[in-house]
This record gives sequence, structure tokens and C-alpha cells, in this order.
Amino acid sequence: MNSVSSSDQTPIALGLDFGTESVRAVLIDCQGRQHAQAVADYSHGQVTERLPGSEQRLPDGFAFQWPADWLDSMQQAVQQAIASSDIAPERIVGIGVDFTSCTMLPTLRNGTPLCQLSELRDVPMAWAKLWKHHGAVEQTERINRLATERADSFLSRYGGTIGLEWFFPKLLETLEVAPGVAEAAEVWLEAGDWLVWQLVGCDADQLTRSTCQAGYKALWSSDEGYANTDFFAALHPELNLIVANKMPGVMRSPGEAAGKLSPAMAQRLGLPAGIAVSTATIDAHSAVPGVGAAKPGTLVMVMGTSSCHMLNSVNMQPVNGVAGIVDGGILPGFFGYETGQAAVGDAFAWLLKLLNLTSFDQLSKDAMELPPGSDGVRCLDWMNGCRTPLMDGALTGMFHGLTLGTTPAHLYRSLLEASAFGLRWIVELFTEAGIPVDRLVATGGLPHHNPALVQVYADVLGHAIEIHPSTQGPAVGAAVLGMVAAGTEASGFADIEAAATAMAAVPAGKETIVQPNSELRAAYDQCYQQYRQLADLRRQLPSTQSIDSSH
Amino acid sequence: MNSVSSSDQTPIALGLDFGTESVRAVLIDCQGRQHAQAVADYSHGQVTERLPGSEQRLPDGFAFQWPADWLDSMQQAVQQAIASSDIAPERIVGIGVDFTSCTMLPTLRNGTPLCQLSELRDVPMAWAKLWKHHGAVEQTERINRLATERADSFLSRYGGTIGLEWFFPKLLETLEVAPGVAEAAEVWLEAGDWLVWQLVGCDADQLTRSTCQAGYKALWSSDEGYANTDFFAALHPELNLIVANKMPGVMRSPGEAAGKLSPAMAQRLGLPAGIAVSTATIDAHSAVPGVGAAKPGTLVMVMGTSSCHMLNSVNMQPVNGVAGIVDGGILPGFFGYETGQAAVGDAFAWLLKLLNLTSFDQLSKDAMELPPGSDGVRCLDWMNGCRTPLMDGALTGMFHGLTLGTTPAHLYRSLLEASAFGLRWIVELFTEAGIPVDRLVATGGLPHHNPALVQVYADVLGHAIEIHPSTQGPAVGAAVLGMVAAGTEASGFADIEAAATAMAAVPAGKETIVQPNSELRAAYDQCYQQYRQLADLRRQLPSTQSIDSSH
Repeated sequence: MNSVSSSDQTPIALGLDFGTESVRAVLIDCQGRQHAQAVADYSHGQVTERLPGSEQRLPDGFAFQWPADWLDSMQQAVQQAIASSDIAPERIVGIGVDFTSCTMLPTLRNGTPLCQLSELRDVPMAWAKLWKHHGAVEQTERINRLATERADSFLSRYGGTIGLEWFFPKLLETLEVAPGVAEAAEVWLEAGDWLVWQLVGCDADQLTRSTCQAGYKALWSSDEGYANTDFFAALHPELNLIVANKMPGVMRSPGEAAGKLSPAMAQRLGLPAGIAVSTATIDAHSAVPGVGAAKPGTLVMVMGTSSCHMLNSVNMQPVNGVAGIVDGGILPGFFGYETGQAAVGDAFAWLLKLLNLTSFDQLSKDAMELPPGSDGVRCLDWMNGCRTPLMDGALTGMFHGLTLGTTPAHLYRSLLEASAFGLRWIVELFTEAGIPVDRLVATGGLPHHNPALVQVYADVLGHAIEIHPSTQGPAVGAAVLGMVAAGTEASGFADIEAAATAMAAVPAGKETIVQPNSELRAAYDQCYQQYRQLADLRRQLPSTQSIDSSH
Repeated sequence: MNSVSSSDQTPIALGLDFGTESVRAVLIDCQGRQHAQAVADYSHGQVTERLPGSEQRLPDGFAFQWPADWLDSMQQAVQQAIASSDIAPERIVGIGVDFTSCTMLPTLRNGTPLCQLSELRDVPMAWAKLWKHHGAVEQTERINRLATERADSFLSRYGGTIGLEWFFPKLLETLEVAPGVAEAAEVWLEAGDWLVWQLVGCDADQLTRSTCQAGYKALWSSDEGYANTDFFAALHPELNLIVANKMPGVMRSPGEAAGKLSPAMAQRLGLPAGIAVSTATIDAHSAVPGVGAAKPGTLVMVMGTSSCHMLNSVNMQPVNGVAGIVDGGILPGFFGYETGQAAVGDAFAWLLKLLNLTSFDQLSKDAMELPPGSDGVRCLDWMNGCRTPLMDGALTGMFHGLTLGTTPAHLYRSLLEASAFGLRWIVELFTEAGIPVDRLVATGGLPHHNPALVQVYADVLGHAIEIHPSTQGPAVGAAVLGMVAAGTEASGFADIEAAATAMAAVPAGKETIVQPNSELRAAYDQCYQQYRQLADLRRQLPSTQSIDSSH
């Protein structure tokens, strides 16, 4: 962190990063100096076993949250951040919010979550569904079948498949499983939009929805709005009415102001009323401004248990297998492309455990002494399915080319290489579609813990990769969006690019850049072709997961 | 072992089992009672690093033996066996010999190995080449290319491929690499035939060759003899002359007498001269009479680091992928079929080490608690290539169907299942070709150490498997062959079946029989079809072993 002078009066933004277990608050000024940060856990955390006070076991895959937790924890984190710094709250000009997605809930028109009504608090479907809630398997299949039959135009923006964790599968599940809840609902919305709504006041006419959440998770586009009413009507006779009547709000991009901090919420947080509040964004997407990458052509790779790779472009161009393309979906003024790899850190942790090892140190050292191609061991890293470009959660992983000489280091290196080949595939899809990728920035926890991985990525791609030092990219990004929402006069920034660069970019000369080893390129080219051959065989590989051993 | 009465005067046979490191001598009477056994190591063992007295490093894959070791160690083991029992040597009516194969050597016409001539002892190619000597890679490729181009008739008996370890690749290597050695050679032969020749005298006109070694390793058949002279001439201008002039001897089946113990050798061993000596056999094949399985239709599975599965039949029927079909090749009067799996115990040991474990106990317990099909993990156990039926040493192994929930037990169970599926494939090839398989007998070290494996085999095959208790099947089999060679009058046995049953079969009621669990059959049928689908994809899978990373 840069040193902070308490007599400084430069504007400051508050970034609020709502994760799965806790909320983080950061205070960052217009020169990128972080004045304070604080984290507060949600009292109820993730509700996956049983509702509080209930004996009834929830089905596997269910996951809920208690909306009051978000407000309580936010209050705690903000007050703690303010208290731990010596800045005057009056210096805060903007507030930005990023949130897990699609986390969604039904509310009354005044914003009260249905689950907080005494008569509905014991009904699971009335609760906020966390992004990872997997209750809508059947509904998702039906939505995909119908969309494919109708060849609906929105499908091309989602790589041909709607995800289990998205907005309408979750809504349709409630409508079918708990029609009483659906009847009581007056507003359906994303948790990030709800949180912003709470900050700016809670009248339905003050509700701003984020193009980010709507575009990536709710079949919305700036041209066509939500999917057409025929489609919804065909899914359920009431669904098009819900879309028409129970999803109010104006659409804005992250970084565009959603309103000003209400007096009630200002009092609760200990801040002045009237601070600009940005439209919400999805947590991973917030890492794009959060690493100072506000230019088109920069692929921001948020690498953790899974990876999310985001790209902004001035062009809208459907890319086969790219699941989300949203106008203004990541930053205002650009088409935001979202891609991902379903298991990265998760797969490495799985392999370590499988091999009965407790540390990557020696394994990684041994693996990096092997030649490119792991002496013929080839891997498909689909242990959690394949997100981009195959969009198939049912795909499984593979190790091929095993011999009696295959060692743990061979498996590990081949897994690293498979992850890199998967990334190269994504980058090639963009460049072949005419969407330039000219800069690669890695962030999240993994690049810091696993420099070998970033080196393999650079070697396989034949392209330098910058490692951004921040591990709080989303929170920083939220602060950037809050600053931009405050407007040029208050923030001093003409646009998002200026703000992101000043507040979040690594100063010139201080970047950590991993250079590709060009001598390895030819060997990796061969291996990559073999990886693609293996991937192409997926349709012929037996699907092995459904053996009936019950008789 | 049964109790032995010293006053007993029933006939006894001496079995000599020449392995890779040592020779084992057993004395067994006509009721199957073992009176003594002794093992003696070869002084020089396997010569793989450098020739004795030489500083020059041998190339990787080279492996030689010193023929005098075989005689010295035999003398030691026989004398020790006699000394440790109280039987009179005069009770020994027959001697049988099994030997590793193809272990082969060039000699003078009087039987003297060329490497034992002072002027040639420093020339590697003059030494006896051990079965595992892999110097003839280039020659083997050439032989296979030529045989395939010419579509030679012998190819069908070998599943379309000649093996690197066989007789003519090894001979051709010497002819091309060391023409001086080839010129000095007067007789080329298998080590087992050489040993028998030494026992009965060492004139060229007393040389008996085994149909077993000739048939399985030297392209010989009872109908056609060796491959035709055009073929040999096309390989090398001198090769057909060598086959015609330097490979003397009569062909006999194992169990047929090759002659009588010579006075000189009798003196050396401390035995009476004139004892019948059986024609040699290959060590693995000796296990067939060695477990008392002399009936057609019994598949004898010798399971160890790799597995050799042998079957006798009254029918000659080419079977796609079955590499060796030899008239009288295993037992006189039957067509002997030899099949194999290239990595069994070796693959299990590899996986244990890969998983950083030291014992199979918990792993096996966990694996057997999983359902058939290992929760979707499917394996191809080709970590050392595939012998039957694909005959391709370059194939590699695979684990498919991996998820973040895959555990070591899943990998291990899927490997056991793959081994069982491989065996089922072999059995189905036989039965589909009209060659009955009605009994399965497992022997070798593995069935005793790994009962879970035998259970999975029985379940996958849907057939009971008998586990023969002997771990010395080849030595016992050699004694059976020695007894039969003594003739009916001396041995009291009318034929090989009677001798094998009386001397080597488990007494009725004392068998260990693993019964199949019929409830698992349907699930395994599905898994087996998936395994075959995976195996069928092998031609489309990228061959990953030859990445050029040198630039």
C-alpha cells in the first residue's frame, strides 16, 4: 500500500464486495491508496443443511442466504473500516457494490424480502437463493430443451446453453414448487440489485437493475430486453406476467449511478446522506476495473478454485461456446465477454489429495523439470465439467498416455498443461472471431500461490502474462465503480478507464510480468493439437456416470 | 504338502524350472507328493550393465546370460534337493525342463556356446540373449513390415505381429550387428532346447527342439515348418541358409522324450544315467500341467507382474488378436493357445506408488466398498501396452470419467475392473471363435496376494474361478512332463492328463473356488461395453509419446 497522509483531502470511494460467506469493505482514494479495509461474516453464512429453527433437512444442492445478514454485516464492516482509518466520512464521494450472482430473491414492493415475513420464514423457496443453489435441475433442462427447439435468438449469446445457477431456472423452480411464494412475491430481483436498492431507498420506482447480472444471468440484452413473452409463456402460463409485472426497474451499467445514499441507510452506516451509489456488478466482473484493466482487448483472468476470464471489446460478435456477451455488462461503453474454466485450483487440490500429498512444493518442482508434454501424459481437466467453450457440466476428466513410468509429477504437469490448453482454446476462439486479445492480466489467489501455472500459461499461449498483485480485485473494482458513479466533478475522473488506471493499475515499472519461453512453443503446439483431438473425441467417449448397480 | 513315507518306492520325477535369476529343482512322486525342492541363483544373474571384465557400458535394453551358469546352478539345486530328501536317486524316472523364452544362443556343433570361446567372450552378440533383451527394435519393425506386405500365412497364427523378444529378431540382430559371430555360429537354438541337449548328450544329431518354443517364438508350425525361405531371404541374404543349415534337430512336444540322461551329466548331477528327459517347454506354459489342467477348455491364468492365459483345444481356429496357436505347443495332442495381459501386478504396484501408498490393504478395502463401475471411473490398463488382443506395445493407459470426487479407491477399483474386462475380452474372443472355455484356473503369485482381484474377475466374467494353491506351477509342470516322458511302464500313467491330474491337481473338495456374484452382472455388462467403446477409440486417440521438445 502507498503511504497515506491524513491531511489529504482527495476523494475516496467505498467498495463493498459481497461474497459467499462475508462482505468486505474497502476505502480507496483517487490515487489508489487504500485507507482501510474490514471484513464481516454473515451471521447465518450459507444455509445448506436446514433453515434456522427447523428440523427438516434441506435436499442436497440447496443453498440459501438471509438478506438481513447482508445489511448487518455491511454495517459492521463499513463502521469498522471508517473507525480504523482517520479519514473524514465526508471525503467519501461514491459507493460501489459487487455481489455473488445469480443470488436472487423475491420481495414485497417496498423491498422487504419474503423470507423475512413471519408467515414465510419457514418456507425455503421464500429465502434468497444463493448462486450455488442447485434445486432447478429439472427446470433448467426444460428451459434448454424449449430454447433449443425454438432456436431462440438469445441462445447465441449464451453459447447455446442456459445454466442451472441462473435467474429464470431459480424463479421457475419457486413458481412450480411453491406457488404460494410466487403469488406473494411482488418483485423478483438479484441480490446485488436489492442491496443497491436498499442503499438508495426502497421504493419500487427507485429500483435500478444491473445490465451485468441481467445480461449474464437473466437472458436480458440491450437490444431485445428479456427473452420474449412467447418463450416465457411456453415455460409456464404465469411466467410472462411475472416478467412484465414483477420485475420493475431501470437498466444501468456498473459504474452508472443508481441513486444516492438514503438518509436512513446513511445513518445506519455512519456516512453522510447523498453519496453516489453505483449500479451493482457481479463479483468476478468487478475484478476487471479492480486490476485497472478498463481497455478493450485486455483479458482479465480471475484465477481461483475455478477461473473466470473477462474481456471487453468495442465489437459485438457471437463466439461459439462463449456463454455471456453483454452490452455494458462489465463496463459501460463496451461489450463484455465472460468465459470460464470450471475447475482450476479445485482440480489441483483434488490431485494433491488423490496423490496423498500435502504440499505442492516438491510436486511442482518435479513437474517443472519435465519436458513440455509431460512425457506423453495428456489430461482433460474437466473434473467439474467444461464451462467455456463446451458448456457441459456433465463432462468428466481424463488422464491419457499413462505408462508404468508415469509419476505424480507427470499427472500434475499434464493437469497444468490441460488448464493452459483450455485457456489457449478460449483465446483462439476470440481471435478467430475477430475479437482482439492483446494483453493478459492474471489475478485472484492462484497466480500468487502457483507461479508455475502462470509460466505454463505464458509458454502455451506464447504471450506475456501480467500478475496483478491485488488479492482484493473485486472490492477494489467496486470502489472504482463507486468513484465513477460520483461523476467527473466529484471524482476528478473523466471516464472509467482513467479511474481504473489511477486507482487499481500497477504503477509502470512495478508490474510482475511472466514472459513466455519461445523455445517451448513448437512442442506445446503439438501437445495442444493432441489436447484438441482428445477434446473432440468427447462425443464418442462413453458417458460412464450412470451405471445402474441397483439390481 | 502331503506327508511322505521314506519306504515308499513310487516313481519320482525331477522338475527343473529355469527362471530369469535362478533355477528351481523339485522332486515329485506320482501321487503329487513333493519330496524336496531347492533353488540356486545364477552366478552372473542377468547381464545388463556390462559384460564381466569389461568397462564398456551395454546399451539400454540389452540383457544376456552366461550358459555355464545354468549348468552350475542346476547341479547345485539338484544335489541340494537330493541331499535334503531321503529318496534314492534310482526312483527318479524322468526329468522335465522349463525355461524362460525366447532366451537363445549360438553354439558350435558340439553344443559349446560361442560366448564361452575365449576369442568371443568379449563380444556381446555371442552371449545368450535373455528373453527380455530388446536390441532388435529395428529388425522387428522390418520383419513386421515385410510380413505384412507379403501377407505371409504365418502371420495369422501370431495375431498379425511378430514380437521384439522372439527368436528371429534376435538372430537377425546378431547377423547384422556382429556378422563375425554369425559366421562362427554352427547351431542357433533356444536355451531350453540347449539345456535338454546338454542333459542327453551334445551331438548335433541328438538335438531335440520343442514345438512350444519353436511354435510360439520362432514362426514354426507343424504344417508349414519355419516361415518360407523367400521370406527369410528377403530379410537377409544369409538368413534362409542359416535356417536350412544351422538349425538342426527334431521337433517334439513337451512331454515327449528328447533322450536319456547322458553318463557325463548323470555323474555331474549325482543321478543314474539313462533317466528319460522330456522335451523342453516355456516356463509359463509349464504351469498348465503344473496346476493339473491337462483337459481342453481349461484356461490357465498365470497371474503375476504380467499375466499369461493358456488354453488347450482340440480345434485349430485362428482367433483375431491371439498371438500364438501351436499344435502340441503346450501339451502333446492339443492345439495350444497363448494370450496375455502386459501389465497386471506391475500396474497395481505402479498405481500404489503413484498414489504415494505403501500397502494395498486399506485401498483394496475401500475399493471393494464401491459399486461396480467405480462411480463412473473407467480405465484402460495399457500402461505397458496391450498384448492380447491388440498386440501393440506402444498403446498407453488411461483413466476416464474423473471428477473432483474421484478418490484413490476409484482409480484402484477401475484398474482392477479394466484388468477383468481385458480378460473377458480374451475369453469372448475364444468363445466367439467356437473354442470352448469351460473352466478357469488362476495361479501365480498374484491370486494369493490379491483375492479382491480374483473376485472382480469372477464377477465380470460371470464364471467361477479356481485358485490353485501352488506358487511353483512351472516347476511342478516340468516334473509332470518328465514323468510322462518316462513312458507308461515306468510312470504308471497312460497319458499326460492322468499324470497332471494325479501329480498337480488340487484334490476334490479342497479347491479354493471364487464364485461370481450374479447380482453384479448387469452393471458389469454395461461397464464392459463402455470399456470396449474406449478401447475401440484407440485409433483416434492422439499418440502422445513422441513430442519433440528438443528445439
